[in-house]
Amino acid sequence: MEDKKELKVSAIKNGTVIDHIPSQNLFSVINILGLNHIKQQVTLGFNLESKKLGKKAIIKVADIFFKDADLNKISLVAPDAKLNIIKDYSVVEKKVVSVPDEISGIAKCMNPKCITNHEQMTTSFDVVHKSPVALKCRYCDKITDQEHLEII
Amino acid sequence: MEDKKELKVSAIKNGTVIDHIPSQNLFSVINILGLNHIKQQVTLGFNLESKKLGKKAIIKVADIFFKDADLNKISLVAPDAKLNIIKDYSVVEKKVVSVPDEISGIAKCMNPKCITNHEQMTTSFDVVHKSPVALKCRYCDKITDQEHLEII
Repeated sequence: MEDKKELKVSAIKNGTVIDHIPSQNLFSVINILGLNHIKQQVTLGFNLESKKLGKKAIIKVADIFFKDADLNKISLVAPDAKLNIIKDYSVVEKKVVSVPDEISGIAKCMNPKCITNHEQMTTSFDVVHKSPVALKCRYCDKITDQEHLEII
Repeated sequence: MEDKKELKVSAIKNGTVIDHIPSQNLFSVINILGLNHIKQQVTLGFNLESKKLGKKAIIKVADIFFKDADLNKISLVAPDAKLNIIKDYSVVEKKVVSVPDEISGIAKCMNPKCITNHEQMTTSFDVVHKSPVALKCRYCDKITDQEHLEII
């Protein structure tokens, strides 16, 4: 693990480590995974040095093993996230995230006239391209591309 | 330090440690101090065991030494916060927070008819009682008490 030399956030016994999150998107990841509403212990660091990302964040969530479908929701904001599943202080599985075929919520439709920008409702997109991301709104059919992607 | 036995978030060389934050108010503290916009390294833990608070959070901010006036802003959401100022890995000063005499922003006026709940504007209160807190709105003169205190 890259951070072993200088461990900023201590090891967990059981749970999930999410590494290589772009620092500026940390709070989006927290919201998407609902970490602000869980009871389990969470430790994290941000603005940590990363050659690849400039500044990265890492989150360690004790005793929670997320479903892949939930983890993939963070792919829009943390496409390079690396996950380690920890049991008894050992990494038992490594995962990466992949952009799902459809996205519900999370992103904003870039069409200012889209109904989702005027009513209290959840956005919904088909993913028409994964890298860079292009999302086709199911309400107005307009494409929201990576450059205009705004996280709710 | 209470967390020395089992250090969840590693020591910092220089900076500020904010301990004994109620876990449910961690993100309010982060917003109030603007930690989501700084470049310095931040490590934190939440849902950590605390005899006093049930679940507590701790934040360690490298290389930042906050002004007392800024620290006191968190008193509404973390009245029992204990601060350690760290230099060269040693605690050089300990601080507690105290409720200031006036509050700008941070809290919502509990009067639904108050102009601050209808226009895009910053709330402003005189603190008429500190524990429990009672805030007198400078716009509508209504008192927002501890029980009805809502953080923006």
